[in-house]
Amino acid sequence: MVEVASAGRAPAANRLDRRKARTRQALIDAAVKLIAEGRGERASIQEITEVADVGFGSFYNHFASKEQLFHAASGEVLERWGQMIDRACEGIGDPAELFAVSFRISGRLGWTHPDIARFLTGGGLELLDEPHGLAPRALRDIKAGQNAGRFTFPSAEIALSAVAGGLLGLLQLRQRQPDRIKETSVDQLAEAILRLLGVPAEEAARLAALPFPPTGAW
Amino acid sequence: MVEVASAGRAPAANRLDRRKARTRQALIDAAVKLIAEGRGERASIQEITEVADVGFGSFYNHFASKEQLFHAASGEVLERWGQMIDRACEGIGDPAELFAVSFRISGRLGWTHPDIARFLTGGGLELLDEPHGLAPRALRDIKAGQNAGRFTFPSAEIALSAVAGGLLGLLQLRQRQPDRIKETSVDQLAEAILRLLGVPAEEAARLAALPFPPTGAW
Repeated sequence: MVEVASAGRAPAANRLDRRKARTRQALIDAAVKLIAEGRGERASIQEITEVADVGFGSFYNHFASKEQLFHAASGEVLERWGQMIDRACEGIGDPAELFAVSFRISGRLGWTHPDIARFLTGGGLELLDEPHGLAPRALRDIKAGQNAGRFTFPSAEIALSAVAGGLLGLLQLRQRQPDRIKETSVDQLAEAILRLLGVPAEEAARLAALPFPPTGAW
Repeated sequence: MVEVASAGRAPAANRLDRRKARTRQALIDAAVKLIAEGRGERASIQEITEVADVGFGSFYNHFASKEQLFHAASGEVLERWGQMIDRACEGIGDPAELFAVSFRISGRLGWTHPDIARFLTGGGLELLDEPHGLAPRALRDIKAGQNAGRFTFPSAEIALSAVAGGLLGLLQLRQRQPDRIKETSVDQLAEAILRLLGVPAEEAARLAALPFPPTGAW
């Protein structure tokens, strides 16, 4: 590998940059691990640096607070999840079907990834302003559905907010009263959301009942 | 008016109670006024007690902080708004029509009461847990629609969250990009939400286009 030192930067500085980047990533990975284990909020900085296997003092070289680290880590979790959905939807040409699959997988977060689900319900609609994760993908998919004439509802942003509200309500109900909600509730909501978007009722029912991509894909 | 002193309370104590209640109400009214004028967050306690025409020191006899006062005041604003909707919907027997009118009036908050709208978008989905205001009424109306067989979507709570998400998205878009959204957007969303609830598309379009109750009623 040939390295070209950028103007004003010696190779030694690049090595330092790379080392700093590795430490930062180790801290983020540790936070992701702790979030996934549901220990995110309770973990101390001492615990985080131990999991990351970096010195305690190096924490503050990268993050001003635990909150800032968890924000960065959350963005990464959401992005990873979004990419997982992208993989599951590979090869689906119809934007309405793609939206249905994405939504049904996202709703199942309550069962498959309860920690991400808790993070989502904790964040609420403000997560719609995050540049990563499900929100920008859902907005892209809604717009694709509009362009293809599959979705007749005129405002993609308002639709996205209703979609997010429904999803968060479902995840929250799952957390509060797990007995009252089954995985079929996710598909019922997907069907209702497709109707909201303007898909005819029968077609919405068909789309929400399609066989899933193989689980390996998500 | 005959007053019966309750057990263990002398009439003098009742007078004091009434006076305390009046001071409390004056503080709440002042906060409501300031919220309605969009000055809620900027107002100092000094300013609040001046608007309420009560002594500065009496504030802390009733509220531990400005936040606590504004919380109480917000509850009252929401409750007042809810009662206004109740009046506008008086005499409407069909739960689906009643829901449509309530929603269309609520969406118009962005035009008629921008300060309440700002309060709603600031509060987000957490407002669904408030015991007052639009949320408990909307839940009641959705359940009535289910019982009447007008709404087929099975979970009233999940539906409410989608409804709230849609409403908040609309109000937020109105605040951020006022040019992109008109009052007809409210009716389009009402129509879409009715479809989500399980009302057939044609019937949803009819309900969202019904003439409004006379403005005096709301």
